[in-house]
Amino acid sequence: MGKLLIVGTVAFDEIETPFGKTDKILGGAATFIGMAASQFNVDSAIISIVGDDIPQEYLDVLSNKNIDLSGLEIVKGGKTFYWKGKYHNDLNSRETLVTELNTLADFNPVVPENYKDADVVMLGNLHPMVQMSVIDQMAKRPKLIVLDTMNFWMDNALDDVLKVIKHIDVITINDEEARQLTGEYSLVKAAKKIQTMGPKYVVIKKGEHGALLFHKDNIFFAPALPLEEVFDPTGAGDTFAGGFTGYLATTDTISFDTMKTAVIHGSNLASFSVERFGTERMEVLERDEVNKRLHQFKALTQFDIELK
Amino acid sequence: MGKLLIVGTVAFDEIETPFGKTDKILGGAATFIGMAASQFNVDSAIISIVGDDIPQEYLDVLSNKNIDLSGLEIVKGGKTFYWKGKYHNDLNSRETLVTELNTLADFNPVVPENYKDADVVMLGNLHPMVQMSVIDQMAKRPKLIVLDTMNFWMDNALDDVLKVIKHIDVITINDEEARQLTGEYSLVKAAKKIQTMGPKYVVIKKGEHGALLFHKDNIFFAPALPLEEVFDPTGAGDTFAGGFTGYLATTDTISFDTMKTAVIHGSNLASFSVERFGTERMEVLERDEVNKRLHQFKALTQFDIELK
Repeated sequence: MGKLLIVGTVAFDEIETPFGKTDKILGGAATFIGMAASQFNVDSAIISIVGDDIPQEYLDVLSNKNIDLSGLEIVKGGKTFYWKGKYHNDLNSRETLVTELNTLADFNPVVPENYKDADVVMLGNLHPMVQMSVIDQMAKRPKLIVLDTMNFWMDNALDDVLKVIKHIDVITINDEEARQLTGEYSLVKAAKKIQTMGPKYVVIKKGEHGALLFHKDNIFFAPALPLEEVFDPTGAGDTFAGGFTGYLATTDTISFDTMKTAVIHGSNLASFSVERFGTERMEVLERDEVNKRLHQFKALTQFDIELK
Repeated sequence: MGKLLIVGTVAFDEIETPFGKTDKILGGAATFIGMAASQFNVDSAIISIVGDDIPQEYLDVLSNKNIDLSGLEIVKGGKTFYWKGKYHNDLNSRETLVTELNTLADFNPVVPENYKDADVVMLGNLHPMVQMSVIDQMAKRPKLIVLDTMNFWMDNALDDVLKVIKHIDVITINDEEARQLTGEYSLVKAAKKIQTMGPKYVVIKKGEHGALLFHKDNIFFAPALPLEEVFDPTGAGDTFAGGFTGYLATTDTISFDTMKTAVIHGSNLASFSVERFGTERMEVLERDEVNKRLHQFKALTQFDIELK
């Protein structure tokens, strides 16, 4: 069994989509990453910070998935990070209505002793120096460090982003962010340039258009499963990252081949996450549903051409 | 060897992309379809209309690929259909600067006697009643009728579009057009609805995001090959259609499996077409380059997960 250390937000999300709206529900990068990774045979822990306004039942959702919360700091009298957003009709674009950092503004992550030897570290989207601090606290170099980031940090802390990505193995980033980071429109060129900045593997997420994995001259592509209904895309990227790192924490070797499989697992789990609001779908997700959909992924993409 | 009948435009294109601009060069749907289909062991013929301003060397480009031009009407003193367009920086959107129908305005397609028994008919983007007229002239029901259309005809001749697609087997259409035709945002739902309108198979083209094939509850997806440089997307969709129908004209059976292979061949050839202006790349394309890139397609998409 592998050990997966996750750093990221545990948050209140308030979401409006064309299909409905929520009150404040459980959200955050670490939440979605942890829920997805729990589908695999891993020991996982979340490092994060919340206020004591977080309902115990939200924490139970995570504990019920056997996620170690000893690294989750609960600030007395503090308020939990809160994000409110609204999706437009096509669900591909969204508007942030409210962001309240609250306790997150003073987050100093502390890696629990028994996770300083984690096999895989998943650095969810946070300030790059917070991500760096987690790497610095590890007792030994993990076999894999994966980092997710976004345009906000490129706009506001580019030097720090460039500093932390020197120390990681895999970056997950969306297509527009890859272009912004490199100034290259072609994703093939962008991925090559990013590989000179540190990460040996680059995963470019294209939302409903799938995900690309790059390593040297190798490229692998996984589509998003075409769905009759996408209900709420919130957390899809983090669910992908959770499936990706959860699977890799169980493997003996890290290679382009195991990473291809990880991309499929990540895409597969993300296809469930978007079916309901927030973590609703992932909370009740059963192993046989996951396996069934892997068959669909295979049918969707596998073909047989005799090659010369 | 199968017989493929192609109806569509043979045109002057004048193109501007971020990488350069052309004078009037050879273009048109039938041109790109024919060039792509010529990669397969098929007898093919183009039905189209041009003015006598078309240079003989342009017609030679088609004849050199063994495309039968006996159904190409050359109007004395007439002018060839002319399209001028400009691509924006991301190459995903383009602006039509000039459209001159010229001889195309009075196009009455006449199917050559020896192609009235064609195995496959590819109806390139044209007025739906022109497409219908070709179907009506066939001596026997072809084993496969494929139709491409676009939003222009849905806006201006929707009843005729609905009439002709009752008689076809496969429609190729882009994602926005599928949504427009059905009022469904989900492509899965849109494809289901289109299957109730006539075509048993629906191919939804998503440009750089690949193509989806739908038939009953089966879905297959082929990505576009990620390229370092896309030079000129003009004709990519028609090249796809040419590879798709060219391959299917060589097969004994039409099934979801042979159609999957056809989608891969179409995507593969389209990846070459966009590498240079107009037909430049397809004119010099060699069989071993095509085979090599099929290997890349396989590496890009094939994975091995033990399923339960």
